[in-house]
Amino acid sequence: MTTNLTPLFTPEGVVVIGASRQSGKLGAAMARSLAAFPGARALVNSRRPDPADGVYASVADAAGHTGGRRLDLAVLCVPAAACADALAEAAAAGCRAALVCAGGFGEAGPEGEGHAKALRRTVRETGIRLLGPNTSGFFDPHLGLTASFVPAAGQLPAGDIAVVAASGGVNHALAFDLAAAGNGISLAAGIGAGLDVTAADVLEHLAEDGRTTAVALHLETVPDGPRLVAAVRRLTTVKPVVALVVGRTDVGDFARSHTGALATSWRTARAALRQAGAVVVDDERELVDALTALSRIRLRPHPDPGLGIVTAQAGPGLLLADRAGADGIRMPELTGPTRRTLGELLPPLTYQRNPVDTGRPAETFARVLDATAADPEVDLLAVYALAEPDSVDLASAAQDAGLGAASPAVVVVGGLPEDVAEQRARLHKAGVPALAGPASAAGAVRALVTDARQRALGEREDPPSQPPPDSGVAVPPGPLDEHAAKTFLGTLGIPTPDRVPCGSRAEAHQALRLLGGPVAVKVLDAAILHKTEAGGVHLGVRTPDELDAALDAIGPGRRYLVEAMAPPGVDLVLGVRRDPVFGPVVLAGLGGTAAEVYADVALRLAPLSVPEAAAMPDELAARALLDGWRGGPVLDRAAFGRVAAALAAALVASPHTAEIEINPLRLTAEGLTALDAVITHTAGRTAEEKDHA
Amino acid sequence: MTTNLTPLFTPEGVVVIGASRQSGKLGAAMARSLAAFPGARALVNSRRPDPADGVYASVADAAGHTGGRRLDLAVLCVPAAACADALAEAAAAGCRAALVCAGGFGEAGPEGEGHAKALRRTVRETGIRLLGPNTSGFFDPHLGLTASFVPAAGQLPAGDIAVVAASGGVNHALAFDLAAAGNGISLAAGIGAGLDVTAADVLEHLAEDGRTTAVALHLETVPDGPRLVAAVRRLTTVKPVVALVVGRTDVGDFARSHTGALATSWRTARAALRQAGAVVVDDERELVDALTALSRIRLRPHPDPGLGIVTAQAGPGLLLADRAGADGIRMPELTGPTRRTLGELLPPLTYQRNPVDTGRPAETFARVLDATAADPEVDLLAVYALAEPDSVDLASAAQDAGLGAASPAVVVVGGLPEDVAEQRARLHKAGVPALAGPASAAGAVRALVTDARQRALGEREDPPSQPPPDSGVAVPPGPLDEHAAKTFLGTLGIPTPDRVPCGSRAEAHQALRLLGGPVAVKVLDAAILHKTEAGGVHLGVRTPDELDAALDAIGPGRRYLVEAMAPPGVDLVLGVRRDPVFGPVVLAGLGGTAAEVYADVALRLAPLSVPEAAAMPDELAARALLDGWRGGPVLDRAAFGRVAAALAAALVASPHTAEIEINPLRLTAEGLTALDAVITHTAGRTAEEKDHA
Repeated sequence: MTTNLTPLFTPEGVVVIGASRQSGKLGAAMARSLAAFPGARALVNSRRPDPADGVYASVADAAGHTGGRRLDLAVLCVPAAACADALAEAAAAGCRAALVCAGGFGEAGPEGEGHAKALRRTVRETGIRLLGPNTSGFFDPHLGLTASFVPAAGQLPAGDIAVVAASGGVNHALAFDLAAAGNGISLAAGIGAGLDVTAADVLEHLAEDGRTTAVALHLETVPDGPRLVAAVRRLTTVKPVVALVVGRTDVGDFARSHTGALATSWRTARAALRQAGAVVVDDERELVDALTALSRIRLRPHPDPGLGIVTAQAGPGLLLADRAGADGIRMPELTGPTRRTLGELLPPLTYQRNPVDTGRPAETFARVLDATAADPEVDLLAVYALAEPDSVDLASAAQDAGLGAASPAVVVVGGLPEDVAEQRARLHKAGVPALAGPASAAGAVRALVTDARQRALGEREDPPSQPPPDSGVAVPPGPLDEHAAKTFLGTLGIPTPDRVPCGSRAEAHQALRLLGGPVAVKVLDAAILHKTEAGGVHLGVRTPDELDAALDAIGPGRRYLVEAMAPPGVDLVLGVRRDPVFGPVVLAGLGGTAAEVYADVALRLAPLSVPEAAAMPDELAARALLDGWRGGPVLDRAAFGRVAAALAAALVASPHTAEIEINPLRLTAEGLTALDAVITHTAGRTAEEKDHA
Repeated sequence: MTTNLTPLFTPEGVVVIGASRQSGKLGAAMARSLAAFPGARALVNSRRPDPADGVYASVADAAGHTGGRRLDLAVLCVPAAACADALAEAAAAGCRAALVCAGGFGEAGPEGEGHAKALRRTVRETGIRLLGPNTSGFFDPHLGLTASFVPAAGQLPAGDIAVVAASGGVNHALAFDLAAAGNGISLAAGIGAGLDVTAADVLEHLAEDGRTTAVALHLETVPDGPRLVAAVRRLTTVKPVVALVVGRTDVGDFARSHTGALATSWRTARAALRQAGAVVVDDERELVDALTALSRIRLRPHPDPGLGIVTAQAGPGLLLADRAGADGIRMPELTGPTRRTLGELLPPLTYQRNPVDTGRPAETFARVLDATAADPEVDLLAVYALAEPDSVDLASAAQDAGLGAASPAVVVVGGLPEDVAEQRARLHKAGVPALAGPASAAGAVRALVTDARQRALGEREDPPSQPPPDSGVAVPPGPLDEHAAKTFLGTLGIPTPDRVPCGSRAEAHQALRLLGGPVAVKVLDAAILHKTEAGGVHLGVRTPDELDAALDAIGPGRRYLVEAMAPPGVDLVLGVRRDPVFGPVVLAGLGGTAAEVYADVALRLAPLSVPEAAAMPDELAARALLDGWRGGPVLDRAAFGRVAAALAAALVASPHTAEIEINPLRLTAEGLTALDAVITHTAGRTAEEKDHA
């Protein structure tokens, strides 16, 4: 493969600028890390050159002593103030990529920002690619290339998982953790300040890297949301990506000190990554579990894969089943033929419907695994057993049962570290992910199932009767009052109540006669955003007297909206707005204070397909309210999907519009109705201009 | 120490009944496991005795060949049908304790239940203590005693953590996991069916065990809630208990097949354990992290301890801070003097307010740890560093800084397994818990802080002006209508709206005049539990006409309640009821559907102190609604605590009462008011009789 990051990650030769023999110095650690690199190596120290010892006065000097191999990569170990000049020298001498580990740039006040600007200028002028600054570097165990000031990274095993981390420290921590779980590394890179090379660049590079079967992605801030999303989306079509996003809590100050940039909205970043096909995890342990599994096996796309559990000890199997159940994993009852087979293989007293409790049958364990995995209801098998060298040999049983890529399974081996390590190595060699315990296995199951569900969603076609969701209808210009906003919703196919805009009391009385009671009477004025607070909403008006009272309360010289009252139901909120990092987003939740207090909302980037939008309500913790709670109405997911997708397309098609919010969007026995809608336009500049500012 | 479980867990000698030389048989595995026991050992096989090989025909025979040492413990490896006779034989020959590993008892239908009954009878008649059946046994590495059919358990290191697990498999799994995390085991026991010895028995035994500094507790079902709670409460006053409860999801069928008993309510069990002082965790990884910390250090009791973070690499420190923040851990800004000291020790560009980002300063790391730990705002320190043998020596720095019991800290070392293991061993030797990564450290922090908070709550005295909460006022007998129920609440000091019970329309009109409008008009009948559904509730009645309409709707020949309307506010639900396992419990949540859909409730066992009850609202996910949400009222926690404690005491004092529910309990600007109350009595038998059935 060749990408524009090839000189950075696959250099013919490496030169360390600012190399040092002094222990403790960055340049010394770096020289030591790179000593094992089998390609060309050169050290440069302009102040203390020592050509006899392989330390040259300049990059050009060094380049003349490599036996004709290119010094593609320059590793800069000089102070921030000297970096731009060193980078220019490297570029002039033929280097096509560089790594700057030190800090002292964007995060370090005006002086540092000056150094960053100088670096950026040199990158622009020379075309050299730059990783960093403010990173501990990268390493590729396949190449024996450790461009990191943590020399221990050079001892990590080569393998098929790549790490792309915002932070150099996290890059190392994840690589060490992945290795401790029995995995090898293909490439691990810490982005740091991301002055030139960003996570998106490295992800694009990894799409072409045949050695990498799965990717770990750690994010703190995102400079260019749409580009990152596009890179993740492209990558997930060919290999799984597992993402960990920092910033659940307000870690702003510390994060800023670390990266020099504001933390990206955690919720939106996670939603965007999920939508692009990544498996989003909550911490680095889940990340390791997910990758231990996804680097070896992947389920076929499936809207809701079924999990079968086989356990040699009931108690740990119960822990696993309990956790998987809490995670919303489906555990189907095994079919009759499977149960008959198991009945022949197992003692009569064990539970055999799923989970399958085997009571440690050494002889029949492989056949039990085989029968359960083969059940048509089972898409993924999870297996637990304590390693008992004389009793159950799990690795052999797994192999005999043909577990692996064709018959996906995750296996937990409990026991003494040496027994576990031996079994794990054999299982991994057979392509079966081995996990550390029930919680770890549950994490792997969650990741595999999430990946399968997301890919199923990506595969599903919009119903052909629906208009393509990206052909959005543009919002009309100018301020829109409630009637105009609802009329616009009508053009999107979103139902609204019957209503009459009225310019006078007489018209309002006529409207009451027309609509019959009860009606809602509201002030109609695009300038009033909070009508209820302003005393401008009167509900349940039935008689001319009540109407007069309502009109009196709203006051004279106003326009009014007289509207049929909707039947009771469940109130949702549906909105589209522009995120400063990711652009147009769709947000759905329950109405009222609950959604706010419980932060129970589903988010997606716009535009989105009808099936993607239709899946949003099922993400809500309160989704039971939408499925006939206490005899109430049931939400037609496809109808919701059409409304949300149309609204999303409208925002995309309307660069002057900042936000459209339907609150409430009421679910009644007759379906969805928009009871109130607010559309706001961007003041001054258009939103598109803002997006590109 | 000597307890009634001493013969079981600290026997002078052990006899295996049903010993076998046939590999794969339980009796053979058990004999192999016990081979390393330095006490007396004897094997019995009535069918194939071989005295020359140390296999005797009977326990009495065997007892004559132990050089005078008692065969305290009999390990029964015979089929279920033969167990009772073997147990009787053992007891007759002087054994005072026994272990039965096999299944085939209570979980195995009527025949098995017969075997269980026979065993129970023998236990009762002989006084022998029995662990099991349906467990893989127990082991004590200090004594070299492995009474388990998993011989590898004999290789676990001796240490100071005890395991008490419902399941034998989980007992082994947890012990292996604890050891893998660098811990040793004092005693590990699987309860199994718990026919005689229960978890509560073992916990009582451990309270006297000086070698044990912390206890892992795994629960599936609880046969005797109050006794378990009492044992946990007693144990947590002297050593920390970390509890994992299975049954979050409906694992009923499988769990029943496994233990032969219904799973205990997950929520109630967890609440009861917390209230008894245990640290309740979500999975076995959290359990290991919690015990790695709590077996070495414990914070002083504190209502909200402050966490200081020092990190050598910013990125992993950020992961840890983010997670701790999400867990509700307080991370105070360091005080001025500390920041001045850090300013002298660290380069100017690093963040120093907390977290403290050190930028890997090898020389000053110990002094940075010392200064941060010494800050008056810091009750616990968390430290992260990648192991870099030539750069930061974390173990030495921790020791130089005096971290340990007197200066509590958790430390994460990242890096290659061998470097990590070396550092961890040195840290553990110094009494400083070493964790595997940010998520793991966050788990340890959560456990230490939870333990400190719970102990602070236990220490806090009720305000002396309050009546002791256990002197409950008994509920009057007989059916209580809403007025009677509210009058009873009044005697408990719980505010209710002004109201007038009316026997006629005339009285109702008089009541309206007395109270002024608006009033609520309700049917008054203890037999109608769902008044609203029955058309028996009319709100906002202001005029005599409206009153007549309401009375017409309720119908003639009724009694009515005319009641002042409460101002708007936030509705809570507060109830007390009897749990079949744990007895009287208190439940608090938000009113409406939200609390139900989000399962957002706080639970406590009754009786409880006012401060304990006052802490309940802060457990609710929606607690922000109670703290002046959008200018609304703020809940006086002490007032709530008095109401809840009084209600709890009332249920305890009223054996004939099944349930008292206040729904809604409205929080207004004037405080709490009970807007509706239902009191139900147990039909037929009293609740107390039911509790003992």
